Amino acid sequence: MSTTMRDVARAAGVSVATVSHVVNDKPGARIGDDARRRVHEAVEALGYRPNALAKTLSEGSSRFIGLVADAIATTPFAGQIIHGAQDEAWRHGFVLLVANTEGNDEVENDAIAMMLEHQVRGILYSTWYHREITVPSTLQQSETVLVNCFTADDSFPAVVPDEEQGGRTATAELIAAGHRRIAFVNTTTPSPARDGRRAGYRAALVEAGIAVDEALEFDADPAQEGGYDVAAAVVDSGATGVFCHNDRVAMGLYDGLRERGVRIPEDIAVIGFDNQDVIAAHLRPPLSTVALPHYELGAAGVRTLLGLEAPPVGGRRLIDCPSVPRQSL
Amino acid sequence: MSTTMRDVARAAGVSVATVSHVVNDKPGARIGDDARRRVHEAVEALGYRPNALAKTLSEGSSRFIGLVADAIATTPFAGQIIHGAQDEAWRHGFVLLVANTEGNDEVENDAIAMMLEHQVRGILYSTWYHREITVPSTLQQSETVLVNCFTADDSFPAVVPDEEQGGRTATAELIAAGHRRIAFVNTTTPSPARDGRRAGYRAALVEAGIAVDEALEFDADPAQEGGYDVAAAVVDSGATGVFCHNDRVAMGLYDGLRERGVRIPEDIAVIGFDNQDVIAAHLRPPLSTVALPHYELGAAGVRTLLGLEAPPVGGRRLIDCPSVPRQSL
Repeated sequence: MSTTMRDVARAAGVSVATVSHVVNDKPGARIGDDARRRVHEAVEALGYRPNALAKTLSEGSSRFIGLVADAIATTPFAGQIIHGAQDEAWRHGFVLLVANTEGNDEVENDAIAMMLEHQVRGILYSTWYHREITVPSTLQQSETVLVNCFTADDSFPAVVPDEEQGGRTATAELIAAGHRRIAFVNTTTPSPARDGRRAGYRAALVEAGIAVDEALEFDADPAQEGGYDVAAAVVDSGATGVFCHNDRVAMGLYDGLRERGVRIPEDIAVIGFDNQDVIAAHLRPPLSTVALPHYELGAAGVRTLLGLEAPPVGGRRLIDCPSVPRQSL
Repeated sequence: MSTTMRDVARAAGVSVATVSHVVNDKPGARIGDDARRRVHEAVEALGYRPNALAKTLSEGSSRFIGLVADAIATTPFAGQIIHGAQDEAWRHGFVLLVANTEGNDEVENDAIAMMLEHQVRGILYSTWYHREITVPSTLQQSETVLVNCFTADDSFPAVVPDEEQGGRTATAELIAAGHRRIAFVNTTTPSPARDGRRAGYRAALVEAGIAVDEALEFDADPAQEGGYDVAAAVVDSGATGVFCHNDRVAMGLYDGLRERGVRIPEDIAVIGFDNQDVIAAHLRPPLSTVALPHYELGAAGVRTLLGLEAPPVGGRRLIDCPSVPRQSL
């Protein structure tokens, strides 16, 4: 890892600001002769090259890693992908360049071109929800790792949540709490989450010797309104536990159950998915759920890009979705 | 604005990927002679300099704007600050370098040093909630604009939400709906939001000829639990309308009112603050609120940094918090 301004500051026993003033020869900065001398000595001793850009030019690639995101920074949801990627990049001496494209192709092309012009070490291409994508042609020329998305032919290394394990975990929590008649409120939207969580739900039932009963599987719009609307059907099904596709559905279901005088967890136990900030911990009762591992997705993406982890088997590395127990079951 | 790879691609009638392959002389890229010739012609005609870093070195400052954020990208809240800053930066030919510091001083120092080493045009320093800060000493050497925060002496230009106008707007909505006995559930946390929203609440009452009654002002933890716990006191106060410090408090208050058989808005009208994603639009009934102008804060920060807007009067530019009417009043 190359020497940074911070290393120089430490060695010289001065602030980063002082180092910057001295090496950039800022007029107007009042720096004592002694501090100035110590900075120059530290620069020499550590072989510090003050201009990151000049350094990049001479070395042919920068200390940047690009992160192209469709809406990660602006949905109240997947920001931890950025956090994880940034922490991990930082740990290895890299800086994350983030471009949020809002799904706009022109912005995306510009962002990727900008990153290539700045000679990034590689690009993480990520989506705010787990889905199949087509990789833009501009990414063929860069080292690319997909985060929270994948291609149909798995031609790019990808890091994605293990939806099936997550669904199995949620269902197993209900079984462990003594439930045998367990409803599943799935999303109406075709997606890896829809297929994976259902496969996990069924696998957990089978594992526990409980027959899969399709009459206990419901489809709902994956928002509060969907959960509210399905409440009557869930009650009528005679289920004593219900696994909701996400926490927003669980939040709506809470309202629907409450209107019917059904108590959580005494009458029906509820488990969600996502561990969504703002709501999961703050429902009444606080919602037991399974977390989407956003932080870990970002961090694993960087490790894969830097070659610190072997490339994922079969194109996709699956990241565990851990159980987050609270009071709803 | 200088020529980008994208301009060259347009002029040559090829993809950005092709331009990149040709100008970077990538081995292995199969590009037809005709396309290669057209790219070279466009590069010459437009005076394109393929290496952004070389260009920066020769020009002395880069096309980067830095955004140092405490937790904007990782709280389900203020991500639109990034979105607004990025859109506005982009519009003027700049690219946003985002560093999320999680409030860690060391990470912050490193991030700022990195930005200075990359010769950013200036730095936006921003916080996920509106508050007073002390500006790190490293920022003295860069052009800096504060976003969603300010210094006690207003020595840095700052762009912040107009909390008082927001509080006035929320209260005026309740008055316009016919209410005269209006409770205010404020936060227990000292902050510009606490003081500003209360000042606005009182100003709106006075403007409408309604006496300020401190018995109608309550303090609550600014989360769902705080709103739930204050429900009994609100009901006992005889208020017919209540302005909540934020939408999370309103969400908890909904639960507390519901348990008491109090209907919204028939028995008590409720208005929130923040227009918080995930919850405001999805409560039952959907919550009328006042929006924090996060997108506009980011955009105005960039305009101020680039000198496209006159520096704010008295150090702080106030951004309006607009009303978002729904069904809770």
